[in-house]
Amino acid sequence: MKNISILLAGASALYLSTSAMANDHDPAALQAKALQDTIAWDITEGLTTEIGPRQAGTEAEARARDWAIAKLNALGFSNVRNEPYMMPTWVRGKETAAVTSPFPQPLTITALGNSASTGDRGLTAEVIYFPTIQDLIAAPDSSLTGKIAFVSHRMKPTQDGSSYGAFGSARFVGPNIAAKKGAAAIIIRSAGTDYHRNPHTGNTNFEAGVKPIPAGALSIPDAENLERMFERGQPVQLKLVLTPQNIGEQESGNVIAELPGSDPSLGMIVIACHLDSWDLGTGAIDDASGCGIITAAAKHIMTAGQPKRTIRLLWAGAEEVGIWGGKAYGEARKGDNHALAMESDFGADRIWRVEFNLPESAKPLADRIASALQPLGIGRGQLKAGGGADIQAIIKANNLAIIDLQQDGSRYFDLHHTPDDTLDKVDPEQLRQNVAAWTTVLAIIANDDGDLTMPLPE
Amino acid sequence: MKNISILLAGASALYLSTSAMANDHDPAALQAKALQDTIAWDITEGLTTEIGPRQAGTEAEARARDWAIAKLNALGFSNVRNEPYMMPTWVRGKETAAVTSPFPQPLTITALGNSASTGDRGLTAEVIYFPTIQDLIAAPDSSLTGKIAFVSHRMKPTQDGSSYGAFGSARFVGPNIAAKKGAAAIIIRSAGTDYHRNPHTGNTNFEAGVKPIPAGALSIPDAENLERMFERGQPVQLKLVLTPQNIGEQESGNVIAELPGSDPSLGMIVIACHLDSWDLGTGAIDDASGCGIITAAAKHIMTAGQPKRTIRLLWAGAEEVGIWGGKAYGEARKGDNHALAMESDFGADRIWRVEFNLPESAKPLADRIASALQPLGIGRGQLKAGGGADIQAIIKANNLAIIDLQQDGSRYFDLHHTPDDTLDKVDPEQLRQNVAAWTTVLAIIANDDGDLTMPLPE
Repeated sequence: MKNISILLAGASALYLSTSAMANDHDPAALQAKALQDTIAWDITEGLTTEIGPRQAGTEAEARARDWAIAKLNALGFSNVRNEPYMMPTWVRGKETAAVTSPFPQPLTITALGNSASTGDRGLTAEVIYFPTIQDLIAAPDSSLTGKIAFVSHRMKPTQDGSSYGAFGSARFVGPNIAAKKGAAAIIIRSAGTDYHRNPHTGNTNFEAGVKPIPAGALSIPDAENLERMFERGQPVQLKLVLTPQNIGEQESGNVIAELPGSDPSLGMIVIACHLDSWDLGTGAIDDASGCGIITAAAKHIMTAGQPKRTIRLLWAGAEEVGIWGGKAYGEARKGDNHALAMESDFGADRIWRVEFNLPESAKPLADRIASALQPLGIGRGQLKAGGGADIQAIIKANNLAIIDLQQDGSRYFDLHHTPDDTLDKVDPEQLRQNVAAWTTVLAIIANDDGDLTMPLPE
Repeated sequence: MKNISILLAGASALYLSTSAMANDHDPAALQAKALQDTIAWDITEGLTTEIGPRQAGTEAEARARDWAIAKLNALGFSNVRNEPYMMPTWVRGKETAAVTSPFPQPLTITALGNSASTGDRGLTAEVIYFPTIQDLIAAPDSSLTGKIAFVSHRMKPTQDGSSYGAFGSARFVGPNIAAKKGAAAIIIRSAGTDYHRNPHTGNTNFEAGVKPIPAGALSIPDAENLERMFERGQPVQLKLVLTPQNIGEQESGNVIAELPGSDPSLGMIVIACHLDSWDLGTGAIDDASGCGIITAAAKHIMTAGQPKRTIRLLWAGAEEVGIWGGKAYGEARKGDNHALAMESDFGADRIWRVEFNLPESAKPLADRIASALQPLGIGRGQLKAGGGADIQAIIKANNLAIIDLQQDGSRYFDLHHTPDDTLDKVDPEQLRQNVAAWTTVLAIIANDDGDLTMPLPE
């Protein structure tokens, strides 16, 4: 009797009781269990070994979708399916570069996504050196006519990855700027922080009306070698061969799976990663590990019993080449009842910080989550959560709440978009910490029936 | 008067006096000065920037010889010259590998020196996995007919580099063994210790009468990926394209320079490095830094005044591809009056150990050298000095004394024979420690007029 009166004492106590009956989602217990996880490794190992590189729009990405569907079904998720869409597809060709004078030698280069082709015979021209992107911006219009611009903008490692935004501009906008100034081509120092002969690819974009030019990234040792040649004061000539092609609209797709909640009236939690990878590596940290982490966490919830809220997994396609999968999801699924979005797409190193973007009323929920993550060494950040690339469209369409579990990015840009993004770079212990953090967060929010409706944006 | 009587008290005192008059070769003072060295860096930076890769027998090695002659003349050495010889030359072609089933994806590969060609159309065959070289040796004769052998013999880092001898066998002898068992081709896990997508090249040799087969090295992440495919128990097929060529006898050469001693009757000290490099990197640690170290040390001696013994610098050609330069030197120069040989060819990391192979009578000399090196953190090893590859022929021809200044090899095989052998891998501080150690040793032995004649070999 006493127990019954306590159970009926209030909504909060009732909630705890209901939850305890439906499942066994004690966050601390699930966290401990998730620290023994093997599922995230299994997925990361499987995708990188059995598929390897899986560039968006190619048959390798299609094989990866088949692999993903089989894996998610085998794990017991519901409504596993491919939601296809079409997207323009660019594929790599030959890529070589060589200084022809004054110090003839080959340089290691890779084409940037959306680079134009030099044609098979290549292009030989004088190189104009710009130490930073600002120097390129400052160059007079038409001053680069017929030349190859070389921008050696340097990026340093940061734990939060913020240097990518600050110093990746040579890749993001350098080619467009150089094209507008008449350059025949552009080569940049890779937007990366390592010293290996593995250049960092990645998309670049040309404005409408600007004719794309050949655009490549040198490995950092090569960029510094070229800088040293310029220090000697003589003109430098380079032969560049990049033969990528646009192969038109190709099919890509999002792989979606669900763990249905007991209360369909509550908005679902969408958790995302991306299935496609750049072609140079096997996409271990970008982003097989992300798919491993979110899926393992959802599976630990599933094993413990049905949560209140539906958890939807989005293994997005075509992130690297323009976030086509995320955009397609936002368009196709904006009518679904979403409450909150999360994404794992920053490698597999330990989570060090949690950030929230929740309604004011959910402050106790955020406090509870932050507190539950502390045993994993995760502190609470001061920034507002922003979410990953693949969930931007649905966040915007549905004005969603967001939680960010921020991974340590100190070595992420050593590997990002390079051939070196391979399984051996994933630390199984840090991977398990990720799974434990995700499981903890899901155990709390998927069983919370509070209102997560965000205020309308200002 | 008192001073004079001391000076005349014995040969030893007289020697010190004579030495002090001829030059200013106080080892401790020269060591301190050499710790501020800039010459070794200048040479390493110059060769890697202005020449870059300089494979033996190619025009790049010829440009490197011209560069070396100009540099050694500018530094004030005497009798600077090229001593040419001819050598058979093998050059790299295309190199690609891809698993065709069951998990289609590209693998990163490089051809081993002396590999045969698959032809442009390549070769597709089943792969047979051998975890170690012993497993390959144990395979029955003809069991590999038409197959590609895959030997994934693993090497771990060691400070003294001894793992290369112990575990490099998959490269040294694996292809010959596989060819004799009928294999169509062989791929090996690189003889290296890093986890980058940069395979380690290096020579392999086929016995007379054994027809060479295509032979390539996978990067270590690729070898482990392939191992994981075999763990899944299905047959693995691979397409291999390697199109190297033998281009016949080409000219190479040794660049030689001298610092003449005051007493030509004393045997000279020959100090060696090698000028050629593999084609994949810019040959910074293998072996531009070695040339930088020995040359800087000899220059510090030169600046301090004429030594008693002649110091001869040998920047050997064609070491990587068969030690042609060292052999040519041994043959051409065996009539010269040599006393002792030393070589620097194990990177640019700090010297941690000194080893001797001197006549019994020179024990006090060895003790003095070991003692003078202690301030640099260099201990005395228990092994007998053996010398580097380029001085083996002259050591054998003239039965020479040897001193080895052993470099720390802990990370050497992360870089050895890969594209990653670039200037940024050279630590200027450790490079200066090398120069200081070499300068110390030269300051002592080049001014010692004791008999260094070795006993006849047993």
